Amino acid sequence: MDIHTGTRTRVGVVGGSGYTGLELLRRLASHPGVETVFAISRAEAGQPTPVPGLVFTAATPEEIESVAFLFLCLPHGATEPWIEAGFAAGARVIDLTADNRPESGTAREAAYGLAEWEAAAIVDARLVANPGCYPTGVLTSVKPLQEAGIIDGGIISVHAASGVTGAGRSPRRDLLFGEVTGNYKAYGLGNNHRHLREMRWGLPGELLLFVPHLLPVERGILETIVLPLKDGNDADTVKSIWKARYSGSPVVRVVDEAPSLRDVTRSDLLLMSAFDNEELPGLVTLIVALDNLGKGAAGQAIQNLNLMAGMPAEWGLQCAPS
Amino acid sequence: MDIHTGTRTRVGVVGGSGYTGLELLRRLASHPGVETVFAISRAEAGQPTPVPGLVFTAATPEEIESVAFLFLCLPHGATEPWIEAGFAAGARVIDLTADNRPESGTAREAAYGLAEWEAAAIVDARLVANPGCYPTGVLTSVKPLQEAGIIDGGIISVHAASGVTGAGRSPRRDLLFGEVTGNYKAYGLGNNHRHLREMRWGLPGELLLFVPHLLPVERGILETIVLPLKDGNDADTVKSIWKARYSGSPVVRVVDEAPSLRDVTRSDLLLMSAFDNEELPGLVTLIVALDNLGKGAAGQAIQNLNLMAGMPAEWGLQCAPS
Amino acid sequence: MDIHTGTRTRVGVVGGSGYTGLELLRRLASHPGVETVFAISRAEAGQPTPVPGLVFTAATPEEIESVAFLFLCLPHGATEPWIEAGFAAGARVIDLTADNRPESGTAREAAYGLAEWEAAAIVDARLVANPGCYPTGVLTSVKPLQEAGIIDGGIISVHAASGVTGAGRSPRRDLLFGEVTGNYKAYGLGNNHRHLREMRWGLPGELLLFVPHLLPVERGILETIVLPLKDGNDADTVKSIWKARYSGSPVVRVVDEAPSLRDVTRSDLLLMSAFDNEELPGLVTLIVALDNLGKGAAGQAIQNLNLMAGMPAEWGLQCAPS
Amino acid sequence: MDIHTGTRTRVGVVGGSGYTGLELLRRLASHPGVETVFAISRAEAGQPTPVPGLVFTAATPEEIESVAFLFLCLPHGATEPWIEAGFAAGARVIDLTADNRPESGTAREAAYGLAEWEAAAIVDARLVANPGCYPTGVLTSVKPLQEAGIIDGGIISVHAASGVTGAGRSPRRDLLFGEVTGNYKAYGLGNNHRHLREMRWGLPGELLLFVPHLLPVERGILETIVLPLKDGNDADTVKSIWKARYSGSPVVRVVDEAPSLRDVTRSDLLLMSAFDNEELPGLVTLIVALDNLGKGAAGQAIQNLNLMAGMPAEWGLQCAPS
Repeated sequence: MDIHTGTRTRVGVVGGSGYTGLELLRRLASHPGVETVFAISRAEAGQPTPVPGLVFTAATPEEIESVAFLFLCLPHGATEPWIEAGFAAGARVIDLTADNRPESGTAREAAYGLAEWEAAAIVDARLVANPGCYPTGVLTSVKPLQEAGIIDGGIISVHAASGVTGAGRSPRRDLLFGEVTGNYKAYGLGNNHRHLREMRWGLPGELLLFVPHLLPVERGILETIVLPLKDGNDADTVKSIWKARYSGSPVVRVVDEAPSLRDVTRSDLLLMSAFDNEELPGLVTLIVALDNLGKGAAGQAIQNLNLMAGMPAEWGLQCAPS
Repeated sequence: MDIHTGTRTRVGVVGGSGYTGLELLRRLASHPGVETVFAISRAEAGQPTPVPGLVFTAATPEEIESVAFLFLCLPHGATEPWIEAGFAAGARVIDLTADNRPESGTAREAAYGLAEWEAAAIVDARLVANPGCYPTGVLTSVKPLQEAGIIDGGIISVHAASGVTGAGRSPRRDLLFGEVTGNYKAYGLGNNHRHLREMRWGLPGELLLFVPHLLPVERGILETIVLPLKDGNDADTVKSIWKARYSGSPVVRVVDEAPSLRDVTRSDLLLMSAFDNEELPGLVTLIVALDNLGKGAAGQAIQNLNLMAGMPAEWGLQCAPS
Repeated sequence: MDIHTGTRTRVGVVGGSGYTGLELLRRLASHPGVETVFAISRAEAGQPTPVPGLVFTAATPEEIESVAFLFLCLPHGATEPWIEAGFAAGARVIDLTADNRPESGTAREAAYGLAEWEAAAIVDARLVANPGCYPTGVLTSVKPLQEAGIIDGGIISVHAASGVTGAGRSPRRDLLFGEVTGNYKAYGLGNNHRHLREMRWGLPGELLLFVPHLLPVERGILETIVLPLKDGNDADTVKSIWKARYSGSPVVRVVDEAPSLRDVTRSDLLLMSAFDNEELPGLVTLIVALDNLGKGAAGQAIQNLNLMAGMPAEWGLQCAPS
Repeated sequence: MDIHTGTRTRVGVVGGSGYTGLELLRRLASHPGVETVFAISRAEAGQPTPVPGLVFTAATPEEIESVAFLFLCLPHGATEPWIEAGFAAGARVIDLTADNRPESGTAREAAYGLAEWEAAAIVDARLVANPGCYPTGVLTSVKPLQEAGIIDGGIISVHAASGVTGAGRSPRRDLLFGEVTGNYKAYGLGNNHRHLREMRWGLPGELLLFVPHLLPVERGILETIVLPLKDGNDADTVKSIWKARYSGSPVVRVVDEAPSLRDVTRSDLLLMSAFDNEELPGLVTLIVALDNLGKGAAGQAIQNLNLMAGMPAEWGLQCAPS
């Protein structure tokens, strides 16, 4: 577990050629505490991975090699045989799909991998379900306010926008460059997006409105969240609560200016700011930025690995945008 | 006023080399009822305009030629001498800047150029103030609901996103391609954007929250508006009211699917749809799409010209996206 | 054939929901001499087309309706049954695929639809093969120079770049927004691209080098062509020859400044300019810009229709970029 | 000079808030052998730099602090007083502007900072002139072929395309997002671009044709170079020569597939491949990709620093794209 002694933790990745898998492999490549033993992708078998010297292999669950940690970056619904195989090989599993998230319907018992909130459960978990990208921003920003008891009952509205890599790398007409460039649209209208159920689970008792939008950018999520505060609280209260809550996080940061997408792209940062509203006292607007492939996926998975393996919290994380 | 006889209305444009001016000149070029006599731009003097055969000139207010209608596409704050000159030359003026909009602080007496709402005043006006691009979407969608008495008192929240041409064509570092590509950000935080005052004026008695965002696209505005309805009303009520109200408009249309930016870009269309929200009965989400340079500027100006000159409502308008 | 009498030529489109088909339907919608009777697309059956009031249908060749002209916008290789069906229904056929182009290997007897060069053959043809987008730019610019006898034997090198719609609308990973944005690459290395055979056929006796590149833009082609001129000739000679040759074309134009992609996008224009090179006398650089979906496909098809039906050359063409 | 002892080389940056300066500061921030003592930018004084804990300062040449190495990332023409000041402060200077490049007209005596070619001169130089971004790709790929004597006399043609950051960060209308998006254009027509003089200096005796183009991307350069080879040589010969020549470089690599822009963006890599051409034996096409801000500017400067300071060649370099 030490960079100088060469004793590194052995890890493997299944489904490494999608956007999430590639991003995870990039982080593992520069993580001082791990050795990436394999990266499985049937489609890309034989092709190089972002880890120097490692090529993708086309293994099946039966052939899985012994590792301490197994990351799953598969399409949703395909994890079950790999979890079995991972457990059989003695591995602990970090699942980046939706399969084992709360309210997903098909979940095994798993720790919810929101690193700043569930560290105690994650440390000892056999299976960690990495959170969805949208819920990561909403829960990280709103849970501390709920916990502090300053939310005033009404509706918490979340208008969110994501880059296209959030929709995966499988070919679809609506994700072609010729369709996406110059475009912007809302989707999941009707307040019933899958990620909303995860947000409701994480914020029991709150009324949530969630409208996601698709941006013509490769990556990044910006969430504009409006919520009512109890008397005597304002944007400064919010920022104080956040700063106290996240002083120990390597990636969650409170900023004064509204963060933009490029303040976080290609990093594992999650930046948050809060603003009062003229003529609407008591209503605060939160701006939350993260990279859907960073803190929204691969970065979070690395945080969970660090917790589970007892490694320094910041190892392998990308803390500067580019 | 007839395409076949050759009797066309003489018009002139001041400030024709910005995005709004160019777009207006393109529409005038294909308008069957007008002859564009001049297009003034000091910076581009001698260069061709989008009107075949017409080059930009560098005239001053003193030199203005006689036209029936004068369009002002200047930077905000620069209109006053041109309005004087226009009036002196016998012209009626359509002002596309913010100078004479309601609550702009420096306004002359002017008709508010929201064509579907102020036709009676526009028809006889000497000066028409073309609405702002964001207010155009908000007022067009929400005013009929207010008029019908179905809004239930609470806050109307507007999350809006605009392409960069909404910020003009003057060089600014934050509008460089190298800064905007891959980015997305909120601005005007604090609920005090200039356009919000115009919305409040147009929706007296309502509480409005407005958060605009900058998109990495050339053009187009998408507004996601959430508002509470009185008991017994829902998205279908909203669409029925809209359809009745706008059946006569050449450009305002109600659609079932959420409109996207590319459904309106390069056109003068304004598309609207409405959606109920699971677990939040009484709250409706409106999706409104328009082109900031179309219905949000040049197209609206053409509608006003048609009203003022007694020409067919659809002449010169661009009713298909591209 | 007259807009006022209502006697319009009946046309049909097969394969209307790809990029070429949609662009063609847009032009047909504003063409004063045609009535678009059907647009066939199995995938989009029942959906609206760009022609007001017309929806896509899912017809098979057996069900084809009687029209005077049939446009084929199919995947390459799928035209044969439709040509049979078109002929059986009494239609003349304009084929926008590669199937019947020169040197395509599977060609029927067809007129080559380069409107400014093959008008005599096109006028009476039963089947017209619309040229490829890249060859359209190369042949339009170089053929007049060959004809004038000023090319000096050596290699004509063509470095070309195209927007992604040139690769069609079928889902492919390498055309996803997440892959294309921020990227630029050469393809068809080895000097054996399919379009090169078409260029060689059109420029017999010349040595051609062709390197195409993929641009992160929706549409447009820019070709940078370098060729040696015989003594006594230079860029001015080239422009003089072009101006004489194309004075009658509604879309081919000679310009002084190097044309950029946005000078032609969404139009049927083909703009050309020529430049001498310091320290390399005798070598001229041509810059040619066209829209791959305009003059490179749908616009050319409209030119051919106008020739075949004896309608004015400019009807239905889009002669301004946007 | 050792990461473990904490003895780091003190460096300073002048003009750090442009694209080149920011990129250089990012590399310095992760360079294990340097301490960045100051970053000067009048416009951004007081703002944070990419180096944690360091803010921009507004120093004048008179106030310059003592460092071992001074990097100049200024507008072209502004370096002279800073070179004087740097020398006076005992610093060696790495100049990233054009001021002291060969054939720049105003040059001091300086080593030409093409790291793989001029190492001997760079190691001891007091002033190093960092090469231009376009010449870096051309000279790196073509010089070994000239040296090997396999070029056959004729014209070497270079068609190059660059992202917009190559044009700097000063506001200009033609670099606005609204102008660049969807566009692509050639510039510097006439074969007289400033960078061409630098290429001619580096490739004495060769005839060069250079046509640069502007891409709608943030960063990256792709050069498509065509040149004639002497009998008996082909693409394989070229790749063999390259592999032998660059085996020791941390960033120059020979690949089989044509490299694309995204294979190098945000990295200091320079990737090259070579292809024979059907029907044109003896003519080889080279595809060269580099990031204009990486190997084309900041990465090259870091290579030069490492040479001058006797540090490991790969320290501070970014060797993976993102």
